[in-house]
Amino acid sequence: MKKQRLYLFDTTLRDGQQTPGIDFSVEDKIAIAKLLDEFGVDYVEGGYPGANPTDTAFFTEKRTAHSKFVAFGMTKRVGVSASNDPGLAALVQAKSDAVCFVAKSWDYHVRVALGCTNEENLDAIRASVEAAVAAGKEAMVDCEHFFDGFKANPDYALACAKTAYDAGARWVVLCDTNGGTQPSEVREIVAKAIAAGIPGGNLGIHAHDDTGQAVANSLTAVEAGVRQIQGTLNGIGERCGNANLISIIPTLALKPAFAEKFETGISAEQLAGISRLSRGFDELLNRAPEAQAPYVGTSAFATKAGIHASALAKEPKTYEHVPPETVGNRRKVMVSDQGGKANFVAELKRRGIDVPKDDHRLDALISVVKEREAEGYAYEGADASFELLARKMLHTVPEFFRVTSFRCMIERRFDANGQLKTVSEAIVKVLVDGEEKMSVAEGHGPVNALDIALRKDLGKFQAEIGDLELVDYKVRILNGGTEAITRVLIESHDATGARWWTVGVSDNIIDASFQALMDSIVYKLMKNREMAGLVAAE
Amino acid sequence: MKKQRLYLFDTTLRDGQQTPGIDFSVEDKIAIAKLLDEFGVDYVEGGYPGANPTDTAFFTEKRTAHSKFVAFGMTKRVGVSASNDPGLAALVQAKSDAVCFVAKSWDYHVRVALGCTNEENLDAIRASVEAAVAAGKEAMVDCEHFFDGFKANPDYALACAKTAYDAGARWVVLCDTNGGTQPSEVREIVAKAIAAGIPGGNLGIHAHDDTGQAVANSLTAVEAGVRQIQGTLNGIGERCGNANLISIIPTLALKPAFAEKFETGISAEQLAGISRLSRGFDELLNRAPEAQAPYVGTSAFATKAGIHASALAKEPKTYEHVPPETVGNRRKVMVSDQGGKANFVAELKRRGIDVPKDDHRLDALISVVKEREAEGYAYEGADASFELLARKMLHTVPEFFRVTSFRCMIERRFDANGQLKTVSEAIVKVLVDGEEKMSVAEGHGPVNALDIALRKDLGKFQAEIGDLELVDYKVRILNGGTEAITRVLIESHDATGARWWTVGVSDNIIDASFQALMDSIVYKLMKNREMAGLVAAE
Repeated sequence: MKKQRLYLFDTTLRDGQQTPGIDFSVEDKIAIAKLLDEFGVDYVEGGYPGANPTDTAFFTEKRTAHSKFVAFGMTKRVGVSASNDPGLAALVQAKSDAVCFVAKSWDYHVRVALGCTNEENLDAIRASVEAAVAAGKEAMVDCEHFFDGFKANPDYALACAKTAYDAGARWVVLCDTNGGTQPSEVREIVAKAIAAGIPGGNLGIHAHDDTGQAVANSLTAVEAGVRQIQGTLNGIGERCGNANLISIIPTLALKPAFAEKFETGISAEQLAGISRLSRGFDELLNRAPEAQAPYVGTSAFATKAGIHASALAKEPKTYEHVPPETVGNRRKVMVSDQGGKANFVAELKRRGIDVPKDDHRLDALISVVKEREAEGYAYEGADASFELLARKMLHTVPEFFRVTSFRCMIERRFDANGQLKTVSEAIVKVLVDGEEKMSVAEGHGPVNALDIALRKDLGKFQAEIGDLELVDYKVRILNGGTEAITRVLIESHDATGARWWTVGVSDNIIDASFQALMDSIVYKLMKNREMAGLVAAE
Repeated sequence: MKKQRLYLFDTTLRDGQQTPGIDFSVEDKIAIAKLLDEFGVDYVEGGYPGANPTDTAFFTEKRTAHSKFVAFGMTKRVGVSASNDPGLAALVQAKSDAVCFVAKSWDYHVRVALGCTNEENLDAIRASVEAAVAAGKEAMVDCEHFFDGFKANPDYALACAKTAYDAGARWVVLCDTNGGTQPSEVREIVAKAIAAGIPGGNLGIHAHDDTGQAVANSLTAVEAGVRQIQGTLNGIGERCGNANLISIIPTLALKPAFAEKFETGISAEQLAGISRLSRGFDELLNRAPEAQAPYVGTSAFATKAGIHASALAKEPKTYEHVPPETVGNRRKVMVSDQGGKANFVAELKRRGIDVPKDDHRLDALISVVKEREAEGYAYEGADASFELLARKMLHTVPEFFRVTSFRCMIERRFDANGQLKTVSEAIVKVLVDGEEKMSVAEGHGPVNALDIALRKDLGKFQAEIGDLELVDYKVRILNGGTEAITRVLIESHDATGARWWTVGVSDNIIDASFQALMDSIVYKLMKNREMAGLVAAE
């Protein structure tokens, strides 16, 4: 059976722009359009030329090489002809391959928001589509509030959709604008639109996530016959967001229920780039990627249960719904309280530490890890501290240097000008090669001061840690009040692009930070030697 | 038509515990069980007594007053009788109302993971259910990998489910353990389980979010006939998480497709507490709530589009799929300053501060709050700091005392016995009624030392703050490395049972903590006077 083609329509740059806290610049839009174009979606909706300076500037050029570039806008105003509507003129003159009109399809909104008759609205749809087609554009119509409109007045909602189709729209898109429609309703209403004479091959779905079912609504619509899916990268969008294309695309490609019947324009190779696409987009938004995101999250193929982990090592496919590499992700077996021995051995192996399962040092390591996790250490979030501990217990790690003492001082007082001032200072004494070095530094708070002092003079190792930088610092209070146990996680990176996390735990936040800082430096020194093959020679 | 009852089963404390980065202490579990019990779910699954010290300790008492308290565990081992299996004995002896057994229902896993025959696995299911029933417990069975197992060997998967039901299990729960099953498959396979002789009234669904459809899979299963839904708070869980009860419950209660046929144990009043429940749980996990979460996110009813916003003001229901107040959430229109002002006045009124809308001090307060929130203050999580700021700007709050300076010192060194030792000390100078007092204290870390020193001698106010206690202390790093901006939230309470939150923000964690500590003390002194009607007289 020949597979039917599904078309992917991305509206990250238009509807995604409605996300609270997100405002794209022209440069952002250019960068995102490039990501989408290279990834291989069929349509990239860029915005609403004429509505604001950013979108107008963005549409002065075609911004995609492969994907069709789509301009969004309103149907012509009631009371003027299509040729006399300056808004419509700006829209069809924008540098785009296609025009997507938004049209009211709920009679209530026609009356209240447009203030015109139902028939005038149908005329506007018809005239606008014809004008776009006449200008050589592919035309499509987003039927706003289609599902709610259908529930209120099915005949009128269908008349809007049918008018768009009859006027020559390539796509008639059924929109669940308020996002509250249930999959069973989508199934039923799509069937009725097809029965009313609009072929499924000309229907699209535009879903929102207000009940957490935008993905399911989109896929249900495909099962019911639609062939275009609108959505956004990582599901951004107004309120709870739009349908997440990053979740939908792998399901279409990898789940037999869809893959046996349908194909998209995304190749297997492009699909393997979807995790990178998702994370790159978050990078661009300057926000942390969602670890638990379907398919692409760093936890999407992570397991910490002991029994699961040992079975997983034997036969991954029985515990993974799809192979992680198909979506460019990877398996992750976490070290944790709940992990079994097999789990441990597999994790160590991934880090290049081979240890036989019956080695007694392995049992000692496991019991130390369990003990420390009970105290509050979180090794699953601190790879480098785990590896350091394992190497110390299973092999040896040289003592590069020793901190013999440190002191931090924080003072807040009024200065000579009567201004409140807080000063933080740290003094560190370090023994390197038998020589004691003493460093002092001021910083933004005691931890920053300690960090600077600690890395100020490590003698012969100083040159090696010059490119070490701390990029993230997280604090979690594990229980109760100000005397509580504190866990500190630190992320470091260096000029090679390597990134690692270390952990420290104490009832004293300075102590906890100190442990994590020390682990970070020692890990870097150890890794340098390992890469140079010098661990044995040290 | 009489509505059919649906049962809500929460597994936050058991399957939710598999979430990467989440490890509950016994205290955490007690707090979460209390939230769930008060909210009104039918079942609270607490963990696996016998598997680890935390869960064993948690099950030494029944932890719920209304919800049924459920212990989770494995079916009896093959080769021993139910009465001779110590794991099973521990499980049925735990202080619980019900026992939920996990049982393999995919023949592949029976062979590879259990290493027994299909028949031995059925025997284990039967004997375990019978043992639980004999011990006076409600028994249920989670059929692990049921959907994947069904696809591989439908007869065996059904035999496992049927065996559990025939042995007396109140609930047979169909689990999509790997999370890759599509809603259409759930619909079909649930129908087959019912056709095989297990009534829908005894079936449950346990879905995972690996394709972003855990909510849809759960609701589809209900449409297909199951009557118990398993899920977690905010959808935490292994890999991509479990079905999110916080999304499912409002849909069941508010969407006609479900509400006309079904009812749950959650009243309309309890439903209005669901936003608070969701945010309170995130607070407990010390993580930022997801703004775009369906129903409960702060953006779930937010709109920034100008046209939508004005239509929304006229007739909210045409742009909102449900009324926000039904789920304890609020409408948020992000453009109108006017809307912002009305919100503010309402917020102040809620705290007993009456201020006319045209008072110029109100504009000043709004701009200070906006400025501070841009710096990182989070007044929505720090009621007391907000109220203090408002009262200071709108009325007056006396300066009870003034801290003229403080100094903290943290020292780590080897003591006389060669032991590493860290000492934290704080010195505080306070001016009370023109008299300078100087206090010094040691503590667990600098913040604790500062807290103790600050409250050591406040002269005539000392007696008043004797019952003030800090019960929680949270730190969030708002950006980047160790020089980052730090936000500290402190929860205090006193002998009257009052609880209040205060906030401090600085690039110095000690400074941020100091602000929050000061706010807490001043708030308490102010409240004491307010209650005594003395504010004016001061």
